Amino acid sequence: MESGPPVARHFQDELARLKERLLVMGGLAEERVRTAVAALVNRDPAAVEEVLAGDEPINQLQIEIDGRAFTLLALQQPIATDLRTIVAGLKINSDLERVGDLAVNIAEAARRYHMLPPVKPLIDLPRMADIAQGMLRDALDSFVRRDVALAESVLTRDDRLDELKTQIARELLIYMLEDPTRIEAALTLILISRHLERIGDHATNIAEDVIFVVSAKDVRHSFGADQKS
Amino acid sequence: MESGPPVARHFQDELARLKERLLVMGGLAEERVRTAVAALVNRDPAAVEEVLAGDEPINQLQIEIDGRAFTLLALQQPIATDLRTIVAGLKINSDLERVGDLAVNIAEAARRYHMLPPVKPLIDLPRMADIAQGMLRDALDSFVRRDVALAESVLTRDDRLDELKTQIARELLIYMLEDPTRIEAALTLILISRHLERIGDHATNIAEDVIFVVSAKDVRHSFGADQKS
Repeated sequence: MESGPPVARHFQDELARLKERLLVMGGLAEERVRTAVAALVNRDPAAVEEVLAGDEPINQLQIEIDGRAFTLLALQQPIATDLRTIVAGLKINSDLERVGDLAVNIAEAARRYHMLPPVKPLIDLPRMADIAQGMLRDALDSFVRRDVALAESVLTRDDRLDELKTQIARELLIYMLEDPTRIEAALTLILISRHLERIGDHATNIAEDVIFVVSAKDVRHSFGADQKS
Repeated sequence: MESGPPVARHFQDELARLKERLLVMGGLAEERVRTAVAALVNRDPAAVEEVLAGDEPINQLQIEIDGRAFTLLALQQPIATDLRTIVAGLKINSDLERVGDLAVNIAEAARRYHMLPPVKPLIDLPRMADIAQGMLRDALDSFVRRDVALAESVLTRDDRLDELKTQIARELLIYMLEDPTRIEAALTLILISRHLERIGDHATNIAEDVIFVVSAKDVRHSFGADQKS
C-alpha cells in the first residue's frame, strides 16, 4: 500500500513534474507582466526592452511542456481525472504563452506611451495588473492543489477587473474630450487596460479548467459510491 | 485490406464525426461574426440583439465536442497522429468558442456605436472581418483536410490583418483629433478592430495546431521509412 507499481509511480512523478513546469512557466509569465507594467509606470525604457527581448524562455517552456503532456498521453494512456488533468495542462500551457504575448503587447504600448505627454498618474492600471496577476497565480495554484474554492474565487475577481476596465475607459474618455493633445496617450492606456483584462480572461480559462478537472471527478466518485451502496 | 478491424473503423468514424462537428461549430462562429459586423455596418439593432441572445448553440456544441474528444482519448487511447489530432480538436474547440464570444463583444460595441453620431463610412472594418472570417474558414478546412499549405496561407494573412488594424487606428486617431464629438464613436471602432484582430489570432492558433499535427506526423513517417530501408 505504500506505493503503486513502478509504472504508476513513474506516471505520478511525471504528472507532478508537468505541474511543476507549468508553475515555473506561470511564474515567468507573471514576472513579465509585472516588468511590463512597472516599465510603463516608471517610464523605464530599459525595462520595456527587457520585456520585448525576453520571449524565448517562455516559448521554450511551452514546447517542453507540450512534449511532456503528449508523452504522458501517448505512453501512459491515462483515463478519468489524470486524462483531464493532462488535457487541462495543455490548455493552460497555451494560456500562459498568450499571457507572455500580452506582456509584450503591454511593453509595446508602454514604448508608444513614453513618447507622448503623460495623461495622468497611473493608479488604476497598476491596480488592474495586480488583480490580473493575483488571478493568474491563484488559478495555477488551484490547478496544482485541485482547489475548486480557490478556482471559483478567481472567477469572481474577473468582475472586478471588468469594472476597473470600464471605469478607466470612462475616465480616459473625459481626458480625451477635455484635451485633444492627450487623445493618443489616453487611447494607448485604454488598449493596455484591454490587455490586462485579457490576462484576467486567461486566468479565468485556467480556473474553469480546474473546476472541470475536479468536479467531473467528483461526479464520478459519487456515482461510484452509489454503485457500491 | 478493405477496412480495419471493427474497433479501428469505429474510431476513424468517431474521429471523422469530431471533425464534422468542429466544422459545424466553425460555421456557427463565423456566421455570428458576420451577423455582428453586418449589424454594425447596417445600424441594425435587431441583428445586434440576435447576436447578443444567440450564444447557446455554440456553448452546447463546445460541451458536446469536448465530450467526444475526451471519450476518444479515454476509450481508444490513440497515439501519434490520432492523439495529436484529438488534442488539436480540443484546442480548436476553445478557439471557436472564443470567436463566438468575440462576436458578442462586437455586437455590444455595435450597440454603443449606434447610439453615437457615425464617424465615417465603414469600409476597412468589414474588410478586416472578411479576412478574419476567411482565415477561420481556411484554418478549419486545413484541419479537416490536413492541408499544411492552406494552414500556412492562414498565417500569412494575419500580417494583412495587422496592417489594416494599424491603418484603422491611425485614421480614426485623426478623426478624433479633428472633431472631439467623434472621439467616443472612433474609440468604439478601434476596439472593434481589436476584436477582429483577435479572431485572426484564433484562426492563426488553429493553423499552427494543424501544422503541428501534420508535420510531426511527417517526421515520424520519414523516421519509419528510414527504419524499414
